[in-house]
Amino acid sequence: MPLTRQQALEVIRRLTQWGSLDVLGKRLAPRSPDDEPRPADVPRPMDFSREAHAQRVAFVEAMGVEIPHLTQRAEPMDPEQLHGRIEQFIGMTQIPTGLIGPIRVNGVHAHGDYYVPLATTEGTLAASYHRGARLVSHAGGVSALVTAEQVQRAPGFVLPTLADAAVFAAWAVSHFEQFRDVAATCTSHGRLLDVHAHLEGNHVYLIFSYHTADAAGQNMVTLCTDAICKVLLEQAPVKPTQWFLEANMSGDKKATVLSFMSTRGRHVITETTLPRRLVERGLHTTPEAMAQYWKMSFVGGAATGSIGVSGHVANGIAALFAACGQDIASVSESSVGITRIEVTSSGDLHCSLTLPNLLVGTVGGGTNMPTARECLRIMRCEGSLEGKEQSAKFAEICAAVCLAGEISIVGAICAGEFAEAHLRLGRPQAK
Amino acid sequence: MPLTRQQALEVIRRLTQWGSLDVLGKRLAPRSPDDEPRPADVPRPMDFSREAHAQRVAFVEAMGVEIPHLTQRAEPMDPEQLHGRIEQFIGMTQIPTGLIGPIRVNGVHAHGDYYVPLATTEGTLAASYHRGARLVSHAGGVSALVTAEQVQRAPGFVLPTLADAAVFAAWAVSHFEQFRDVAATCTSHGRLLDVHAHLEGNHVYLIFSYHTADAAGQNMVTLCTDAICKVLLEQAPVKPTQWFLEANMSGDKKATVLSFMSTRGRHVITETTLPRRLVERGLHTTPEAMAQYWKMSFVGGAATGSIGVSGHVANGIAALFAACGQDIASVSESSVGITRIEVTSSGDLHCSLTLPNLLVGTVGGGTNMPTARECLRIMRCEGSLEGKEQSAKFAEICAAVCLAGEISIVGAICAGEFAEAHLRLGRPQAK
Amino acid sequence: MPLTRQQALEVIRRLTQWGSLDVLGKRLAPRSPDDEPRPADVPRPMDFSREAHAQRVAFVEAMGVEIPHLTQRAEPMDPEQLHGRIEQFIGMTQIPTGLIGPIRVNGVHAHGDYYVPLATTEGTLAASYHRGARLVSHAGGVSALVTAEQVQRAPGFVLPTLADAAVFAAWAVSHFEQFRDVAATCTSHGRLLDVHAHLEGNHVYLIFSYHTADAAGQNMVTLCTDAICKVLLEQAPVKPTQWFLEANMSGDKKATVLSFMSTRGRHVITETTLPRRLVERGLHTTPEAMAQYWKMSFVGGAATGSIGVSGHVANGIAALFAACGQDIASVSESSVGITRIEVTSSGDLHCSLTLPNLLVGTVGGGTNMPTARECLRIMRCEGSLEGKEQSAKFAEICAAVCLAGEISIVGAICAGEFAEAHLRLGRPQAK
Amino acid sequence: MPLTRQQALEVIRRLTQWGSLDVLGKRLAPRSPDDEPRPADVPRPMDFSREAHAQRVAFVEAMGVEIPHLTQRAEPMDPEQLHGRIEQFIGMTQIPTGLIGPIRVNGVHAHGDYYVPLATTEGTLAASYHRGARLVSHAGGVSALVTAEQVQRAPGFVLPTLADAAVFAAWAVSHFEQFRDVAATCTSHGRLLDVHAHLEGNHVYLIFSYHTADAAGQNMVTLCTDAICKVLLEQAPVKPTQWFLEANMSGDKKATVLSFMSTRGRHVITETTLPRRLVERGLHTTPEAMAQYWKMSFVGGAATGSIGVSGHVANGIAALFAACGQDIASVSESSVGITRIEVTSSGDLHCSLTLPNLLVGTVGGGTNMPTARECLRIMRCEGSLEGKEQSAKFAEICAAVCLAGEISIVGAICAGEFAEAHLRLGRPQAK
Repeated sequence: MPLTRQQALEVIRRLTQWGSLDVLGKRLAPRSPDDEPRPADVPRPMDFSREAHAQRVAFVEAMGVEIPHLTQRAEPMDPEQLHGRIEQFIGMTQIPTGLIGPIRVNGVHAHGDYYVPLATTEGTLAASYHRGARLVSHAGGVSALVTAEQVQRAPGFVLPTLADAAVFAAWAVSHFEQFRDVAATCTSHGRLLDVHAHLEGNHVYLIFSYHTADAAGQNMVTLCTDAICKVLLEQAPVKPTQWFLEANMSGDKKATVLSFMSTRGRHVITETTLPRRLVERGLHTTPEAMAQYWKMSFVGGAATGSIGVSGHVANGIAALFAACGQDIASVSESSVGITRIEVTSSGDLHCSLTLPNLLVGTVGGGTNMPTARECLRIMRCEGSLEGKEQSAKFAEICAAVCLAGEISIVGAICAGEFAEAHLRLGRPQAK
Repeated sequence: MPLTRQQALEVIRRLTQWGSLDVLGKRLAPRSPDDEPRPADVPRPMDFSREAHAQRVAFVEAMGVEIPHLTQRAEPMDPEQLHGRIEQFIGMTQIPTGLIGPIRVNGVHAHGDYYVPLATTEGTLAASYHRGARLVSHAGGVSALVTAEQVQRAPGFVLPTLADAAVFAAWAVSHFEQFRDVAATCTSHGRLLDVHAHLEGNHVYLIFSYHTADAAGQNMVTLCTDAICKVLLEQAPVKPTQWFLEANMSGDKKATVLSFMSTRGRHVITETTLPRRLVERGLHTTPEAMAQYWKMSFVGGAATGSIGVSGHVANGIAALFAACGQDIASVSESSVGITRIEVTSSGDLHCSLTLPNLLVGTVGGGTNMPTARECLRIMRCEGSLEGKEQSAKFAEICAAVCLAGEISIVGAICAGEFAEAHLRLGRPQAK
Repeated sequence: MPLTRQQALEVIRRLTQWGSLDVLGKRLAPRSPDDEPRPADVPRPMDFSREAHAQRVAFVEAMGVEIPHLTQRAEPMDPEQLHGRIEQFIGMTQIPTGLIGPIRVNGVHAHGDYYVPLATTEGTLAASYHRGARLVSHAGGVSALVTAEQVQRAPGFVLPTLADAAVFAAWAVSHFEQFRDVAATCTSHGRLLDVHAHLEGNHVYLIFSYHTADAAGQNMVTLCTDAICKVLLEQAPVKPTQWFLEANMSGDKKATVLSFMSTRGRHVITETTLPRRLVERGLHTTPEAMAQYWKMSFVGGAATGSIGVSGHVANGIAALFAACGQDIASVSESSVGITRIEVTSSGDLHCSLTLPNLLVGTVGGGTNMPTARECLRIMRCEGSLEGKEQSAKFAEICAAVCLAGEISIVGAICAGEFAEAHLRLGRPQAK
Repeated sequence: MPLTRQQALEVIRRLTQWGSLDVLGKRLAPRSPDDEPRPADVPRPMDFSREAHAQRVAFVEAMGVEIPHLTQRAEPMDPEQLHGRIEQFIGMTQIPTGLIGPIRVNGVHAHGDYYVPLATTEGTLAASYHRGARLVSHAGGVSALVTAEQVQRAPGFVLPTLADAAVFAAWAVSHFEQFRDVAATCTSHGRLLDVHAHLEGNHVYLIFSYHTADAAGQNMVTLCTDAICKVLLEQAPVKPTQWFLEANMSGDKKATVLSFMSTRGRHVITETTLPRRLVERGLHTTPEAMAQYWKMSFVGGAATGSIGVSGHVANGIAALFAACGQDIASVSESSVGITRIEVTSSGDLHCSLTLPNLLVGTVGGGTNMPTARECLRIMRCEGSLEGKEQSAKFAEICAAVCLAGEISIVGAICAGEFAEAHLRLGRPQAK
């Protein structure tokens, strides 16, 4: 389950860091553009001209974010700087990147109006997310909250007998404190949070869960767990005949049901309520049609054995991850989510999206690639800041953007505009 | 099920296009480097210097493939050319791309030795896939075969009653020929293959399956199905009260169990057998250890509710998709697979990988982006060629590369080298 | 998918056997008790006295159904008659059996008011299903329709290579007609409907689907497939090195996602609409609360990796299967289902239940046990009747009963009466 | 995960209750029939005559277990005694019950040779389990160990906003001690073990886990959770707009992936190793063939979206549950398991079965039905004994029997005897 008793205390800490619970309620509440005006939209949204492009670049740089690498004005990177990122480098794959927003996010960590870069070659995608971002912002924004945060590594051990396996598992789990200290010698940022054992016959899986600070943390958990296992193998009262540093119980780069039981990355909940009028004017459909769609889609997901049920979260995650230097292979687990769409008792549209597995980081991995750094800077999520949780902030924005995208695509399907939009924006056009 | 009776005939066609079944067996059989020497390896594999980079670029261009965009020598793209690919363009996200190989593929469509570009920021990834590619090539290569090919769109219909739903579904499914003709008016390349109905209470889901030629085809199936639905709604004897062009039963950009029942994209099977000596020398472990790992990993997958069970297929798919202009969001469904590792009766290592859902294309979508085109050209998979199935060829190479990656990572875990490799290659290095 | 084009024709046959499609609509439509009065309720529902029991027995026998075995008036069975049902017989397990109803079913095959026996030791269960049955009957009954019907057996074959596997699979699937003839020599009632192949590396799974007439058919499909495999192994152009009559791809006695893609047993859809007033008076809650519950429960199912999402279908299935001589182990697959609960635009409550895998029979297996035969006779579903589909009739009643049970339990949960009912009826009482 | 740190301590307690860990290893180790002779087999196994039946009854009664109800010598039950078990009672469903064994179990709780009653109408089933029980006993028996024990109830709460939901969840989880005290006022046997929260948008699911002593405990957890919720709703700082005592996150009577993450009932691991010679003589096949079968079956399970992967565990569970007064509907979750079959380095056959969800009790529910009590008595698992864990003992026997059944069916499939056995034993025979 995402929230153990231990984790609940952490959530309380988060919730109250801005003051009492009342204050929190206010921080997450919608902020109407009537009271707090939205910043300007990204300029010239449906304009594909050189001028429009230049104007958008100027717009970004006027915010104080230089983007020489995105715009290809900067010198190509020195290959020698790519050690640790790529082997046998031949060049740079280029993926066109569009800017959407601003999207208003009312989160604990992300609290403001954000412009968001999306890297994709699927025409319509950026336009659709932009439409969603505008709508939710007009409705006061998206409430968003990171709850649990952890990343796992799950070594496996083959024991001679089932009795040995039980002894080994019980021994290991009861030596948590020692392992926590071992982990502390391997990383100055992360920390071991917990360890569980899974017994299957004479096999033992240990699931080590870490907080990885502002890093996505896959390497960190690998190195720490390797160190822990060495201690464990030396000291355990019974010895495995074989062991493996990862035995496929961590959910690493895979969609698994584990997603919902044991957060991998960050568990983020979001919601927004669109007034009926906004649905009708902005999406050309009704709250009832969208709620009906949700029911049909949810049953469709259940009947096809889907992990989680959502619209097209993978589109938003993939575009954000590519732009922001995240591990694209983790689209597999990060795009698992549950979208919910309902008509409120007053006839408005309540939408929520829960992403239990958002594996993101603002330091390490690909985040120090020049274009990724520029993209993170546009979102004000760069690096690691004293006293701030940048990754949690980034996670809240990602989830808010994905919720906006869910609303936009469901609206398009309900209004019968889905095919037409792809006809218009999803194919190269004669000029 | 991936292979209906109708699809079996298609497989027979594929299998015999090169002659009798005996000839096929030969085409898919290993070709020892002793008999057919491997082309040269990518130059200077673990060298991060500028010179090594230049030498690799020269190596590629000496093959006759110019790569001005990958190497950033070419002018940036004109934003106006990006209509249909991105809206609100601000610039190009750059992802470092490494070259691995050659990998020997003994497929029906892909038959030769291929160099493969991988775009990633995860250090170790390209090195690990390169190691795997070398190993499988030394063992004579990877047998690979595309079987089923189809892409779905699944509209949903709300009927007044269950009786209406049954009538509607039965009527729709029995008008297949008419819908096939409608589809034919929307696309000159693709064709409607089949239609199924799914009845849930008073809801009907129709699943339309298309062959999309060398395109990935998501837009094609959207536009064709939209046209079909318009005819259907006009003519059906009972009318839905609501309908949706996609009702979440197509597996679009999601990992679902449907993957194994109803191919989305291409269903590819691959295998290779590594002699014991090669496992010991190349991977520093034994076939027995790797087979044991497989069992432990497979149970791990089953116990976590994984869709398919594999090692890190998502890594290979994500890196190939990013480099080659595929839809990165489709990593979700395309990376679903089943890896199998066994010791043969003669003590060697048999490995197979089945990817039931490889959603790839060599035309359309992002494939006409300049760096994507260069990458596809390096793999000799560019565009659409008269009389050749380029996408099937590309799919066979992708799957072979992923199998090589599975072998490499499992070998590293069994040899206890997994953490060390990431320590060495997964972090930025002081020079 | 449950409904192929071939199966659609079968559905059309079913739907029109009573006349035109208009006539069908009428056959499945609600029949108000005002127009067609309900038969009397089971006497003295909450009375646990000897007299009440005697009165209920008299009530059943007055319908013309003698129940000497249920009432233990008959002589115990001769052990020698149990050959084929049990080995090493020591005696008879006795499970208390209650009678509920009548439940009005408006099905194609089941069309009338039925009394239903339920065998269980879970107090509250029979009372709750009885309440549900009364409610749906007051609302005009449950519409019910069997669509697809088939049972699978899935042998597996190990081939020397992937190329051999492809040749073997293609050959097998294209020899369907021959296999159908082989099957016809093994059974006079059933028939082979289709064969699919599943290719995984060098492994081939063949999925043979049969119509098993009024039998549940597990033995029939085993024996027919064994005979087919013998022919297949003799004639196939390439020979497997090993084969297994069942390789775990038939969904036999397991909950699998396959349930929704490929009916095992019978796929039944049901629905009913309860007027708001009936919900308020009969269940002490509102349509809105029940619809809200459904959403919460559905998300709960999705987040726990449930196969299908329902309330407590397994309770109804287990009680019906135990009473009626069905294979209790098939509760695993038969209780998979999807319940849907919605508020209609006029404020009433629409409920549907789809059971895709109802593995039932009215002949063979345990159905000839004396108490089972009495129970089937009470439901007018005994044996096999010329020109009638008794198993389809039984399936429609089962599904209708389960829908009634879903409504009753959700109502109890929403009204806050769930715990209280179990306190009152779920524990032995001092007299 | 089944084993939290807290649960690990419980396992250590179990493991060491017989002395040091060395002593435990001995308690779970195989005991060869050469050293400790097996008690006599059930008399005249394949004999369906009246005499054979009488001899088996005499055999059971000679053990000191009277079985007047199983043999139908006793008077029928007084209907008035059925309050709490059934409503609207009309009579007793009778299911033929066979006796198998003895099966040697080397468990922590079950330690001895046990005769086991199975209630079924599927001919072949009892014979097959009997064969398996003999084989594993000849090999020294089945090691078996209960690890985690708990049953859940999962109420759901609708909060006005996501911020309220987070506050509510955090508040609830941090008031565990108070809820534990509330639970203690509702039950003298069970106790609240833990509480987790699951946040989805503005919805909160609380998962309460209980130890239910020797009862299966479904009613106990319902009543305790109801009491807790009343306190919770009164005291929580924010109030739900709606709540439901169970919101489908407990895995109640459903196969869910949750099974492997969060034990429902008892998590039991078992194993046995059959010498090669025993496999060849007793099963007419080889360890290699059975290990190959396992691989094929496991992939089959993965590809069909099976929850857990086993042979026919549901058969054993259903027959045991029916005979022993367990809740038959819980076959759904209890039959979820993972079977593993491997060749050891010395060429023998290692088999293990893990059942993570065995929901059993020896008191309460149907266990006080006369025939159930007789069956439990035959297994020496009746009721609740001071200082003994009867339910854990029963669980270990159940799992051992299921492992024996797995070995027997896989042996039959590998030897090509599966169809023949069903032909001989699965159909009524002319005498």
